[in-house]
Amino acid sequence: MSTERAVLDAHYMARALELARKGLYSTHPNPRVGCVIVRDGRIVGEGWHVRAGEPHAEVHALREAGELARGACAYVTLEPCSHHGRTPPCAEALVNAGVSRVVAAMQDPNPQVAGNGLKRLADAGIEVASGVLEAEARALNPGFLKRMEHRLPFVRVKLAMSLDGRTAMASGESQWITGPAARSAVQRLRARSSVVLTSAASVIADNARMTVRGDELGLDPETTALALARPPLRVLIDGRLRLPLDAPFFQAGAALVVTAAEDDPRYAAAGHQLLRIPGENGQVDLRQLLVELARRDINEVLVEAGPGLAGAFARLGLIDEYQLFIAGRFLGSTARPLLDWPLARMSEAPALKIIEMRAVGDDWRVTAVPAPAPGV
Amino acid sequence: MSTERAVLDAHYMARALELARKGLYSTHPNPRVGCVIVRDGRIVGEGWHVRAGEPHAEVHALREAGELARGACAYVTLEPCSHHGRTPPCAEALVNAGVSRVVAAMQDPNPQVAGNGLKRLADAGIEVASGVLEAEARALNPGFLKRMEHRLPFVRVKLAMSLDGRTAMASGESQWITGPAARSAVQRLRARSSVVLTSAASVIADNARMTVRGDELGLDPETTALALARPPLRVLIDGRLRLPLDAPFFQAGAALVVTAAEDDPRYAAAGHQLLRIPGENGQVDLRQLLVELARRDINEVLVEAGPGLAGAFARLGLIDEYQLFIAGRFLGSTARPLLDWPLARMSEAPALKIIEMRAVGDDWRVTAVPAPAPGV
Repeated sequence: MSTERAVLDAHYMARALELARKGLYSTHPNPRVGCVIVRDGRIVGEGWHVRAGEPHAEVHALREAGELARGACAYVTLEPCSHHGRTPPCAEALVNAGVSRVVAAMQDPNPQVAGNGLKRLADAGIEVASGVLEAEARALNPGFLKRMEHRLPFVRVKLAMSLDGRTAMASGESQWITGPAARSAVQRLRARSSVVLTSAASVIADNARMTVRGDELGLDPETTALALARPPLRVLIDGRLRLPLDAPFFQAGAALVVTAAEDDPRYAAAGHQLLRIPGENGQVDLRQLLVELARRDINEVLVEAGPGLAGAFARLGLIDEYQLFIAGRFLGSTARPLLDWPLARMSEAPALKIIEMRAVGDDWRVTAVPAPAPGV
Repeated sequence: MSTERAVLDAHYMARALELARKGLYSTHPNPRVGCVIVRDGRIVGEGWHVRAGEPHAEVHALREAGELARGACAYVTLEPCSHHGRTPPCAEALVNAGVSRVVAAMQDPNPQVAGNGLKRLADAGIEVASGVLEAEARALNPGFLKRMEHRLPFVRVKLAMSLDGRTAMASGESQWITGPAARSAVQRLRARSSVVLTSAASVIADNARMTVRGDELGLDPETTALALARPPLRVLIDGRLRLPLDAPFFQAGAALVVTAAEDDPRYAAAGHQLLRIPGENGQVDLRQLLVELARRDINEVLVEAGPGLAGAFARLGLIDEYQLFIAGRFLGSTARPLLDWPLARMSEAPALKIIEMRAVGDDWRVTAVPAPAPGV
């Protein structure tokens, strides 16, 4: 491939990724996908997948291109599907439209596709390429990929801490230590997730609902409407069923309650689902819970809880990404820790890679991922 | 003043500030100052103050300009001095050189100058202006300004912590948790300081020397040589004179030992100075120590110690700037805190303004300053 062609491919794929991002809050359980149709150096069709059950990105783009799709090049952020799902296969649609070349950012890891889409296109005499801006395309769908490749959801943990790494005073006294911009960022993290997962302890302490509030998202009206039409499932870990059914959390809508206790028919009667996944010491088996969530087509899980539950996920190595919101405060040496995770030796201290630090209003947001220890 | 003139003034002052920065590691106890002489839209002379006792920035720049200084405009990052110090007054030199205009970034807060330099120039018929890039000029000399304005040095505290705000394991086990780039940045913080201040506890724990090592500065050879020729004074807080005189810290050169204990002639005999500043509970009075250091012409103090001493400075409100080096690690909930500073209520939690977060190798560096509490 010539350099100029590579530059142009990246250019158009970047636009396709931009389109795909419009579906950040609504495509669950499907991946976010964008598509651009280019003919004679001009974009003649654009599309993105809006929500499950509706047309895929390619179909939108082909419709816009109409007859101009014949002989054109299609850029798609994910390999076109080859199987009949709720919609007909996109590979078929591209063949029928008469495109002469298809560039995908990445292969679809879905075992029902996994190269078959590109093969179907190539068999029809269409020139195909894959791997353009692949890293960016993968970053767009961490949950879908994790689920397809590992049968687990992508687990993101949100924590708010002071500059000295504390989350609340020793007395339990806590309040929003971060400002409105950080809260808005957290709302967007919730909205993009398939599941918002919390603990009875957190919900009781904060009287929390864990809902997505449209006016706090800070998004344009169209995207806000899409996000509110597809709210994340709220999952409550409540090993001993302590949270009363008249709590605001339950009043705010149907929830999934995960417990180690015996079934209690009152939950179902109130419209909630009770899931029993007992682990050790009367606690919920968190790993098994994640397996179950993936089985239910959950892509991204946002854990929003205190040091206890977040620490439990961390100790089990189940966290894929930390989102730390850091307030310009010191809470002092007796305040509560970031994670309940006692470590005795430096050699046990887990390594992290800090991906990004950026200002969010008066606060700062740190994105970090578990890293292999140096030398490993 | 016309817009174009303001743009050009800022342009030349930026160059003068760039020159002033060359003296970052060597001008102590003098301020860092740069000067640019401009004639007919062209820089005809540049200078910066290298070290105390040697010519000021203006003199270097005027020498380079020679006869071209007549009728030229001089840009200086600090008001030219009007008093006879170790060198003759620069205001005099500018008058004698026949410049027609002098632009200063800021007035000299030194009570011996304080506007007299600009007045002397104006009295000689020279057009004067002040306040161009003043914030940048002030940021260059935080210690000199704090000392002149408050009779105290500027106190910068360096701390290295994990992402969860911990400095060492509970056992005391500690090691470099940050990498070479962060260590190099710390070396530069030491080198620019007038004093590096530490505690006996830290020096004993780490067998530390607290010296500046040229090969770790990461500076060009010229600047490295300047820095090594003017090393910071090493100040040890040792309330009960616990650190033995044969420790590497004392072997590395003359130090100032601050204590609450009685005088011990062995320190003087070994070439060190003993300073008795007793406070409460047999500890050193830290506030009084800073007053004494300012009296000794100390501009910038770098506190490099553990949570104990750093916490004591913080509790007394004596810290002007925090330099936090953050490693991508969790040390866990039982590890040692950032600062020994127990706080009971959220309302006591001190507010900070995070000025900057930036990557330093694999680690991150946070600059934060105490901030008034919201609503105050």
